[in-house]
Amino acid sequence: MNPEASLIDSALRGWKSNVDRTAKLFGALTEEQLLEQVAPGKNRLIYLWGHLTASSDALLPLLGLGRRLHPELDSIFISNPDGYSQNMLSGADLKKVWDEVNDALWAAFSNLSPSDWAQRHTAVSEEDFKLEPHRNRFTVLLGRTAHLAYHFGQAKLAQR
Amino acid sequence: MNPEASLIDSALRGWKSNVDRTAKLFGALTEEQLLEQVAPGKNRLIYLWGHLTASSDALLPLLGLGRRLHPELDSIFISNPDGYSQNMLSGADLKKVWDEVNDALWAAFSNLSPSDWAQRHTAVSEEDFKLEPHRNRFTVLLGRTAHLAYHFGQAKLAQR
Repeated sequence: MNPEASLIDSALRGWKSNVDRTAKLFGALTEEQLLEQVAPGKNRLIYLWGHLTASSDALLPLLGLGRRLHPELDSIFISNPDGYSQNMLSGADLKKVWDEVNDALWAAFSNLSPSDWAQRHTAVSEEDFKLEPHRNRFTVLLGRTAHLAYHFGQAKLAQR
Repeated sequence: MNPEASLIDSALRGWKSNVDRTAKLFGALTEEQLLEQVAPGKNRLIYLWGHLTASSDALLPLLGLGRRLHPELDSIFISNPDGYSQNMLSGADLKKVWDEVNDALWAAFSNLSPSDWAQRHTAVSEEDFKLEPHRNRFTVLLGRTAHLAYHFGQAKLAQR
């Protein structure tokens, strides 16, 4: 493995391990447990899970890997706070979407070369990217890995 | 910047932004607030802050960057649970240690070349590293960035 590929391998391992531990935690909860808040007055577990699913789904267009699979998640889990939407998914349905989104992402990630990772993401213009070359796919991958860990840490608090 | 240096730059930015937001959150809390639990029956904020400080201090030897600055933190914040130690630090004292550790780490990180980052960390033997070359400094950096984000997410829950 060349040095660049090795660095990307490390980042993909970090992404995968955070996806896997998140899937394991939420996947083990009952529908009833998913409706519990992580702390008094805070988001419910189902909301955190859906929020992470929607964020990951949004990576597909952000990284130029394809269209969103589930744009309908945004109004439930991103643009509105927990409790707003009447269309909350069941845990069983959310698990299917989570798996679908993560399988699609992992397949797409596995096809990217080191130079693909160094390219700009779609929310930065070509002009801005010349001035700020760190606004690339790789930086997004690292940021979203931290985002997963951030909410996983919160969900862990609700575990008994 | 060559491609490897660019990937490392992304990871260092991710580390730094997590250190900075963590410092900002804890640094803004009063001594009284630091003694509050992040959720009922869970760790106090001061414990999370000290735990992250001790973990970062331990990176110095783990990454082969020098000796620990504050090994005394471990029995308070790592090897024992919150409430066990009688030597809890004040927020003011912990802030000094946090800054000292993070300044030392940042200075050391800034001196590492891409090939330094690809070298094994000190908890893996030369033999094992041949079989598992991903057990390098870079992977540790990414893992500890996720660790920061994990506990930062928990601390955020206690913010009002």
